[in-house]
Amino acid sequence: MTILSTSSQPQSARTPVPLSRVKFSGKFWGRFQDLVRTATIPATYQRLKETGRIDAFRLEWEEGMPNPPHIFWDSDVAKWVETAAYALVTHSDPDLRSIVDETVSLICSAQQPDGYLNTHFTVVEPEKRWTNMRDNHELYCAGHLIEAAVAHYLATDESNFVAAMRRYADYIDTVFGLEDGQKRGYCGHEEIELALVKLYRLTAERRYLDLAKYFIDQRGQMPDYFEVEARLRGEAPRSLGVDILSGDECRPPAPGSPMIHQNHLPVREQDEIVGHAVRAMYLCSGMADVVAETGDEELFEACKRLWEDATERKMYVTGGLGSHRADEGFTCAYDLPNETAYCETCAAVALVFFAHRMLRLDLDGKYADVMERALYNGALGGLALDGVHFFYENPLAVAKGAKPRQRQDWFGCACCPNNISRIIMDLGEYAYSEGANEAIINLYAEGEALLTVGGQAITLRQETEYPWSGEVKITMSAGHGANFILRLRWPGWCDGGSVVVNGEDMPFEVQKGYVSIERTWQDEDVIELSFPMPARRVYANPRVKADVGRVALACGPIIYCLEEADNGPDLDAIYLPRDQPLHLALEDALLGGVGVITGKAFQIDPALANGPLYRSEEVTLQRMPFVAVPYFAWANRKPGEMLVWIREI
Amino acid sequence: MTILSTSSQPQSARTPVPLSRVKFSGKFWGRFQDLVRTATIPATYQRLKETGRIDAFRLEWEEGMPNPPHIFWDSDVAKWVETAAYALVTHSDPDLRSIVDETVSLICSAQQPDGYLNTHFTVVEPEKRWTNMRDNHELYCAGHLIEAAVAHYLATDESNFVAAMRRYADYIDTVFGLEDGQKRGYCGHEEIELALVKLYRLTAERRYLDLAKYFIDQRGQMPDYFEVEARLRGEAPRSLGVDILSGDECRPPAPGSPMIHQNHLPVREQDEIVGHAVRAMYLCSGMADVVAETGDEELFEACKRLWEDATERKMYVTGGLGSHRADEGFTCAYDLPNETAYCETCAAVALVFFAHRMLRLDLDGKYADVMERALYNGALGGLALDGVHFFYENPLAVAKGAKPRQRQDWFGCACCPNNISRIIMDLGEYAYSEGANEAIINLYAEGEALLTVGGQAITLRQETEYPWSGEVKITMSAGHGANFILRLRWPGWCDGGSVVVNGEDMPFEVQKGYVSIERTWQDEDVIELSFPMPARRVYANPRVKADVGRVALACGPIIYCLEEADNGPDLDAIYLPRDQPLHLALEDALLGGVGVITGKAFQIDPALANGPLYRSEEVTLQRMPFVAVPYFAWANRKPGEMLVWIREI
Repeated sequence: MTILSTSSQPQSARTPVPLSRVKFSGKFWGRFQDLVRTATIPATYQRLKETGRIDAFRLEWEEGMPNPPHIFWDSDVAKWVETAAYALVTHSDPDLRSIVDETVSLICSAQQPDGYLNTHFTVVEPEKRWTNMRDNHELYCAGHLIEAAVAHYLATDESNFVAAMRRYADYIDTVFGLEDGQKRGYCGHEEIELALVKLYRLTAERRYLDLAKYFIDQRGQMPDYFEVEARLRGEAPRSLGVDILSGDECRPPAPGSPMIHQNHLPVREQDEIVGHAVRAMYLCSGMADVVAETGDEELFEACKRLWEDATERKMYVTGGLGSHRADEGFTCAYDLPNETAYCETCAAVALVFFAHRMLRLDLDGKYADVMERALYNGALGGLALDGVHFFYENPLAVAKGAKPRQRQDWFGCACCPNNISRIIMDLGEYAYSEGANEAIINLYAEGEALLTVGGQAITLRQETEYPWSGEVKITMSAGHGANFILRLRWPGWCDGGSVVVNGEDMPFEVQKGYVSIERTWQDEDVIELSFPMPARRVYANPRVKADVGRVALACGPIIYCLEEADNGPDLDAIYLPRDQPLHLALEDALLGGVGVITGKAFQIDPALANGPLYRSEEVTLQRMPFVAVPYFAWANRKPGEMLVWIREI
Repeated sequence: MTILSTSSQPQSARTPVPLSRVKFSGKFWGRFQDLVRTATIPATYQRLKETGRIDAFRLEWEEGMPNPPHIFWDSDVAKWVETAAYALVTHSDPDLRSIVDETVSLICSAQQPDGYLNTHFTVVEPEKRWTNMRDNHELYCAGHLIEAAVAHYLATDESNFVAAMRRYADYIDTVFGLEDGQKRGYCGHEEIELALVKLYRLTAERRYLDLAKYFIDQRGQMPDYFEVEARLRGEAPRSLGVDILSGDECRPPAPGSPMIHQNHLPVREQDEIVGHAVRAMYLCSGMADVVAETGDEELFEACKRLWEDATERKMYVTGGLGSHRADEGFTCAYDLPNETAYCETCAAVALVFFAHRMLRLDLDGKYADVMERALYNGALGGLALDGVHFFYENPLAVAKGAKPRQRQDWFGCACCPNNISRIIMDLGEYAYSEGANEAIINLYAEGEALLTVGGQAITLRQETEYPWSGEVKITMSAGHGANFILRLRWPGWCDGGSVVVNGEDMPFEVQKGYVSIERTWQDEDVIELSFPMPARRVYANPRVKADVGRVALACGPIIYCLEEADNGPDLDAIYLPRDQPLHLALEDALLGGVGVITGKAFQIDPALANGPLYRSEEVTLQRMPFVAVPYFAWANRKPGEMLVWIREI
């Protein structure tokens, strides 16, 4: 295994701290994890039951019956099992455990003698198994089942599900590949790649890693497999539209374009992030996983190019991805319209996946910054504060007169609910990393983690109101002296700050977004971090046409927005003066307890709207106080207008 | 005939001064008329010849031959004849006259024994005559032929063309109507209505007026004629999309919607201007013509409602109409996007038609103001300064990186070139009106007009550099004393000003946009008008989302724009300070001699574009001088960015 030269440590020696050793408490992630456990998991199970998704695994559907299992359904159940498994890791819950085990048994019972497991293609269209990889999501469903099985095993020590999934993966490995008689295929919706690396990590079975690598490298090879199989299905070749990603006109890939599923080029040759945003992020996550296990430099370079394009040219300030509904994905660089932003919840979740994997490959705060941005804003906004309503799309503005946006309790295509819930329940894995000689904090959150550094158990306890405060007190339990490096993420939004160790102010240097302290740590050492966290203004690159002349408000990792509920209508007639002080307060009674930014703004005199179409008199402005709330908490009150990018004067 | 109560005079007593009695000279309309005569008319004739449009009237096309006459072609030739006829009225030109007469003979030779005259439906699809009124433009072509015939007669005193068109109209009158055996149809593209009123005015044949009224009132009656004939053609009923004109989502009528051709409701019941903008304006013009001849109050009320909706909620600051390419027309109120504005040249021309007709019904400066706005900006911009290139679409912005816009020398659908040229050559009719006891100036322009007031010939000579100057000297030749009211339009954009009669400053009052002076006028009386004409700022109603925070620059009737040729790229990164003085100069050497507005602005530091996607540092601005040129003259230099609505700071 090659050691990555760009990484300051052999990547194999720096791994996420497993979920079982991290516990969140407090008012933010502790509260959200409680919400998902107590509200989201039961509610989404109920939806899966009542829509027939769970009972589909009974394989009782027959021609002529209503409600045939849909090609996506297995993945919805799998993600629920995965989420519930994460919940069981940190909270014993016999009732939930029994539902999970029962569901897992049912899933396993649907496995075919050859290892295949897919409800739709077993009972509805068995003759179409593996005939349309482009559209049918079979390997996508398989991937989610594998992820669920790994999570189930880690939560319960029961091996039935993971054993079934090994058989499934073994079977898939016989079907796809470069050997004679094997299909040269891969899935139109990536997911199996990262799942196979999880299975490899659990089982140490190399063929799963090799199969993941095969799926990654086969994508985009000529002849285009999706065309090959289309001809086998007797379909005419697609008449492709013109793909324009930059230059004259900016639009998503034309319907039928290979760009939608990232198979327009071999992935190692790709420079631009294109197409369906969730697929693209799952692909990149799988690529980064393979890099982590193989040290494949060329593939890592591709990851870095795609990361750069995604996050420095095509990412909303919320960490949302996907500028257009047509491909649920990317268009061209800097095309980030706010009202029509697609920003699927799953895409922000998947950006957290990708960021976390890049951070594992290269401990650089730029990855942690994006991970945090997407997590606290674009992803978390997908979940209502009641835990049982969800956004699929997460626009950055709802204009006057536009259709109100409200979270729904379910979707026909129900990918988002269990994606936001599973990442919340799995968040422990994202917060800490450990290495041979280092303990790393990537995310600040009230709670406790047990790390293993150089064979020694280290406990880190965080006391903080982060993200509402930048004060973090870390108490170390390190036994009787242990020499290692404590690496503390220094958020990119933070200017200044202090590090106090055992009451003593410490000079520090931020390198690649982390402050590193090497010493012999003692039990009950206390590290106090202070990240100045005033309300601040954020500006977009002027190439982002939609945001020119506008400002976003932020505080720490949280992006704020104006809502009609606080500010009345006509939000886009509000001007925020450049020199206006911004006031920050924590409002315990509002939206479950959130930070609020207030100040004075101006608004166009509403009477002008009743005036003529054109006039020569100056536009008159009225003073008004404004209230901005965290973006993730929007649309939890009366539906109305919303605005992230506020006009600046 | 009812006298219109809303008009201060019986409308029959106030009529446009015929073209033959008005002559423009000087650097603006004199120059543009010369340009059209010497460049546009020869060039467009050449295009008509080389594309086969003129020779189509030979009816020599047969199945299997290339280049079959298209359903629109007759109208293109007709509008050219009309334009050339106007040119002959004011400028004797034997060569042009002989081409016109030859063309007219050729057109007439294509008339069928029953009076029908349409090249496509005579030689290409004779079996489809009158079978698809919705799409086939037969009556539209007939209308343009009638307009051409009327113009030809007035220019030449030759009656052959108008006689042929009477036969055609008589035939149409037998085909369409409410009698047994007649078709209940009307044309998908309005035009015949206003043409029939012209024919009525020339011939005093009442049936033409009645037929125009029939076409207007039959539109929108149930059952929908376009559906009836579709069934007769064996087509399935249209599956209509949902039409949303306001509320949740703003978009043009769905494909197949009756709104596109304004037959969703009887016209007297219509409150909103909808659908294809040229069709809508031609319909309104025809309606106003019928009102002028019948005094129909109910129809006049409909005209006023549609006028109000078109000009107070759906008109661009240039007088352009049509917010969306999909229907080439209207969407919902205040939806006026600038980059994607359709603003077909023909629609601005047609708005001039409608405004002029409303002004005839009610001498109110608001109609003259819109007439002038559309004429000098949205319409005139359709013509290049070389006279031989044309815009079809007239957007109000060309963004950085967008497809450059350039005028073309012809179009497959070639309606616009001969529409802008015919209105320029016919402009005399729009400038002056005369009544029993009044002489009226609606437009200021260097030149001379002969009016008949109370049976007496009055000559008005205007000396002015309007629109580049607001000083107008009017010299009257009124024989030896004539008592009448001289009504002088006071432009809506004008604040203050003075009226000096024979050197004596006169107190004056502006009523409904006109200043009226009643006295016994003497030969060589001199009226000097002074309209203060500083460069000024124009603001849109804040409901126009596209223009919030933006300012347009204007001077007199002229709307200005920024062009890349003068200001470099990144026009939308320019901010114009509210308090910045605007300087106006007439630049004789620029763009054929135009006014120019200059001043100091700020521009976002271009270096920021190379910075990160998001940043917290304030956006830095750089001082820059700016140059704005008249909108009508844009895109006559190197293609590049253009912007009417400039960001204001």
